Amino acid sequence: MKMFKIPEATVSRLSVYSRFLSKLDKKGIITISSGEIAEGVGVGAAQVRKDLAYFGEFGTRGVGYNVKDLHQHILKILGLTTSWPVVVIGAGNLGTALCLYDGFRERGFNIVAMFDVDPLKIDKEIEGITVYSMEKLGDIIKEKEVKMGVIAVPAEYAQQIADLLVKNNICAILNFAPAVIKVPEEVQLRNVDLSVNLEILTFNIVNNVKNLY
Amino acid sequence: MKMFKIPEATVSRLSVYSRFLSKLDKKGIITISSGEIAEGVGVGAAQVRKDLAYFGEFGTRGVGYNVKDLHQHILKILGLTTSWPVVVIGAGNLGTALCLYDGFRERGFNIVAMFDVDPLKIDKEIEGITVYSMEKLGDIIKEKEVKMGVIAVPAEYAQQIADLLVKNNICAILNFAPAVIKVPEEVQLRNVDLSVNLEILTFNIVNNVKNLY
Repeated sequence: MKMFKIPEATVSRLSVYSRFLSKLDKKGIITISSGEIAEGVGVGAAQVRKDLAYFGEFGTRGVGYNVKDLHQHILKILGLTTSWPVVVIGAGNLGTALCLYDGFRERGFNIVAMFDVDPLKIDKEIEGITVYSMEKLGDIIKEKEVKMGVIAVPAEYAQQIADLLVKNNICAILNFAPAVIKVPEEVQLRNVDLSVNLEILTFNIVNNVKNLY
Repeated sequence: MKMFKIPEATVSRLSVYSRFLSKLDKKGIITISSGEIAEGVGVGAAQVRKDLAYFGEFGTRGVGYNVKDLHQHILKILGLTTSWPVVVIGAGNLGTALCLYDGFRERGFNIVAMFDVDPLKIDKEIEGITVYSMEKLGDIIKEKEVKMGVIAVPAEYAQQIADLLVKNNICAILNFAPAVIKVPEEVQLRNVDLSVNLEILTFNIVNNVKNLY
């Protein structure tokens, strides 16, 4: 199944919708309208309907969506009906914060190992996750069938870590280092530049852009 | 000056372009073509031209853009020709990682104070930044003319921290807590949900979406 035409913004919103649906489901709510989803997550109702329409018809006119079904369907679209083992490279503050981040675990991302070059950190545990030396990277990726790697090292080391992850057959990389890195076409890459978010805020302040939330 | 029609994706890319131009400028490079910018940041050349065209004509046909001028112009558009004092609420691992994050300082975001409720953290310094008790929030925002606040607390406290920031006249909030928070229309808000990034990757893996980088 190929879905080249789904905009990334839609995928982001699906992720937000599914989190909201998960909460509703836990509260025992059975059905919901697109208007209520829109209200709950702060997106327009037309946008919600358009986003969900990419994936076929879910709702019943006048009744709305079945919360459990819609939630499951979105999780499946996002690839979240299985759990994903993840390795984090860099056991500094950011790497540690990521290990503590509830948002990952809740969504099926299990950090199975951390890696660092600092001898003081190697073989220690952070939140129950062992920090290994870089030499063990290949073995652990293979053993734990890891497909995703998170880069949380200083900018100047980001490319060499990416190269190492690629060499060890990682499918997808999330890069937190403020550096442009390159990977082969077959590897998925996302750069999370934390300051871009602040810059969108300053742009909006300086240019009087209305808040979209 | 109002610019309601600039897509947020364009603003994000402007941020990326300006980082690239800053590097070129430091290397003493005088002019650059849209094709070279495109190549350098991993975006299509047509996209680069389209993004820059939102803000008028910069380039000279056949010559390209003047690196220094284009860089300065983009910084101005992004509101980055002045420095922005920022407060961080939550002095845990994430808050600490943000204080250490070079990407902020480089772009003119100065974290002037951190806040926490933990008596063991209050009045200590992290990377030269003092951690204050929440009671001091209003005074420090006023004294240091802070317009931006970063929320790096557990999800369950995010809304009450947002309310406090709003009460103390913060213009813009960057929220790292995995929680939906609400603010009045006149306050800028961005939610950084770190797991959304992983979910876009799993979506791309599961649906065989081509890597866009």
